[in-house]
Amino acid sequence: MEKYRFLLDLALILISTKLLGMLTRRIQLPQVVGALLAGLILGPACLGLISRTGFIENISEIGVIVLMFSAGLETDISELKKSGGAYFVIALFGVAVPLVSGFLLASVFKISDNFIENLFVGVILTATSVSISVETLRELGKLSTRTGSAILGAALIDDVIGLIVLTVVSSFADKNVNVLLTLAKIAGFVGFCALLAVLIRKVLKPWIDKYRKDLRRFAVFAFSICLFTAFISEAVFGISDITGAFVAGLLLSDTKHTPYVLNRMNGASFLLLSPVFFASVGLRVEVHSMTLTLLFFTIALIIVGCTSKIVGCYTAARLCHYTRLQSKKIGVGMMARSEVALIMATKGAAMGIVAPATIASVIIMVISSTIITPVSLKLIYKKQASMEANEESSLVARHEAKHKIEEAAQTAYKHS
Amino acid sequence: MEKYRFLLDLALILISTKLLGMLTRRIQLPQVVGALLAGLILGPACLGLISRTGFIENISEIGVIVLMFSAGLETDISELKKSGGAYFVIALFGVAVPLVSGFLLASVFKISDNFIENLFVGVILTATSVSISVETLRELGKLSTRTGSAILGAALIDDVIGLIVLTVVSSFADKNVNVLLTLAKIAGFVGFCALLAVLIRKVLKPWIDKYRKDLRRFAVFAFSICLFTAFISEAVFGISDITGAFVAGLLLSDTKHTPYVLNRMNGASFLLLSPVFFASVGLRVEVHSMTLTLLFFTIALIIVGCTSKIVGCYTAARLCHYTRLQSKKIGVGMMARSEVALIMATKGAAMGIVAPATIASVIIMVISSTIITPVSLKLIYKKQASMEANEESSLVARHEAKHKIEEAAQTAYKHS
Repeated sequence: MEKYRFLLDLALILISTKLLGMLTRRIQLPQVVGALLAGLILGPACLGLISRTGFIENISEIGVIVLMFSAGLETDISELKKSGGAYFVIALFGVAVPLVSGFLLASVFKISDNFIENLFVGVILTATSVSISVETLRELGKLSTRTGSAILGAALIDDVIGLIVLTVVSSFADKNVNVLLTLAKIAGFVGFCALLAVLIRKVLKPWIDKYRKDLRRFAVFAFSICLFTAFISEAVFGISDITGAFVAGLLLSDTKHTPYVLNRMNGASFLLLSPVFFASVGLRVEVHSMTLTLLFFTIALIIVGCTSKIVGCYTAARLCHYTRLQSKKIGVGMMARSEVALIMATKGAAMGIVAPATIASVIIMVISSTIITPVSLKLIYKKQASMEANEESSLVARHEAKHKIEEAAQTAYKHS
Repeated sequence: MEKYRFLLDLALILISTKLLGMLTRRIQLPQVVGALLAGLILGPACLGLISRTGFIENISEIGVIVLMFSAGLETDISELKKSGGAYFVIALFGVAVPLVSGFLLASVFKISDNFIENLFVGVILTATSVSISVETLRELGKLSTRTGSAILGAALIDDVIGLIVLTVVSSFADKNVNVLLTLAKIAGFVGFCALLAVLIRKVLKPWIDKYRKDLRRFAVFAFSICLFTAFISEAVFGISDITGAFVAGLLLSDTKHTPYVLNRMNGASFLLLSPVFFASVGLRVEVHSMTLTLLFFTIALIIVGCTSKIVGCYTAARLCHYTRLQSKKIGVGMMARSEVALIMATKGAAMGIVAPATIASVIIMVISSTIITPVSLKLIYKKQASMEANEESSLVARHEAKHKIEEAAQTAYKHS
């Protein structure tokens, strides 16, 4: 029976994320919140029906990779080039303010007498999880706006800056981590992406654009490239696999058959991969024995984690001439934490500079932020919907084409 | 690096199955053969790049479940009801002739002095793998013909009869296996399916037929039902999970939105699941030290395995008034062995009545039959294509609707 247990796990995850997603949607919350709650309810925090098996971890990893790959495919690369400088400034402030705030918070709560251990709480807060925001923005149809691009672009750069900070701070605690080597790896990753870009532009794109039928092969090749890039990012350059997947999506975002590829990726995503990913975040939560101090620290961590990102990113966005409303959206869109924060906390624990109790707080902060972010984003967009009618970027035409495909697929046989 | 290895495995499997599939298609072989060869080349038999990890086993299990679920969704249930008797006769002969032939072969080669051990070689030969034939017939566009339905239906019943035979033979060797209990479980499974049918017909179908938009939820619910049924078949009733998945597909084969569900299942299948399944069959082969006798036995096993199925099923089909040509196709379509034969061999080994060397022969026989079957099927259909122009069953209209969806999805944005 244990051998086939993964079938039951998968069925439970699919049905509960969908039912709770339909429920949260009915009460005007994003479907993502329902999917996260499904994981919380099924997992050790509540019913204890499902635990994070190797199978669930692998599928959820592919799920977040496909989410980021699709986000890359949907990104307007010319917009990213035009505004790259602004994204960098937003990311820089979005790392600096939480880093300092987290350190101060840990010092106030006397988490440790060690400077590095307190600083590491700040490092964990630097991470930004774009996947929750991407899914919410996609649901609202706002992913390809100027604000959506800024959130995506800044979160991408945030990932790289956060990684540099992690490496530098780790090198203080551990003599095995070499700062220069890590910086060389980041440079190597940039070189690898440039090489991939040339290969795709010179070899793959002309071939893809030539064909008009049997598009399935392009979907399979595109997905393979995404997986290769994700693997090489992690295994060779030590860069998060989701960053690699996003870059692969960016590089494939302007072929003739991108809308078809995107439609097929989205199909596999909603049917299998993304429900498992979002549920698996909820599955991480366990009920720990909590001291009162730790409870207050956790609450403070949630508040500081959210506000420091908003303050940092809002300030930077204003400096870069975004409107007040746009800056507010960017700040809110950047405040979600997920896998990167958890990965950092786990790495810190492995180096002995993060206590197990702190990890519990970080997990609760991550879960809270993944619920607060989409709810706030949806509220802020709903409130000001009318003020933003003309904000669409040049990606809109392609976006509409994508929806046409979905509609065509849904209606084709009704009229047959 | 090991932690992310599954991404590389997946990328290698996807790209190689697709490239080899394109190659075999160009030389007029089915794409499935290319996918199987990809597994052989990547696996321990050749390059040794990929081994069967838990992740690959689970994905390939879901892959074969989805293949059988889709086959169920595509099956004309009225055709199955009408011809159920004929399918039963075909399945019965398709079990009996290989059972006797396998026993005689093992006795001639003196595989063992033990009656049961020789008989068990026959038991392994009773299995039929319909997934290879289904994929080939789908590729040829012949799945919903009278012959296609007969192959599917007979293979389904074959699975149940084979299981009964396995149980009876096992009970001679092992006092822990209870024949009556197993028969009760099979009866229980039939009861469970009847209950599920009533639930779907009375509760789910009226609800599905009422809605016209947001069809994604139906795809998710249908897939969940498939996984639940597959799990319960295995865990509660000891019936193969793929049989459960096929039954779930059958029960959902006549809702209003079945074509949409089928299209989405096929999308997830070609993009991720079925390449892993077909490659994983090839991954099973290892190079063993072989004696000359064992080599001759293996060759004889392949010949006897294939011909005994053809003779048994051809004879039965002729008795049931199928034409000579149709009977030939049915016989050839039934001769492939795959997961069930391997499962039986593994179970026999666990009970100590199948030697490890015999398992190697069985694996080679399985691989050979999965290559011989699609090639022969394609040849036989190609040779006599003109003679069968009017054989289409009533499912054709729905089949065309499905193709319309795929075409709509592929062309929608070209004209936008």
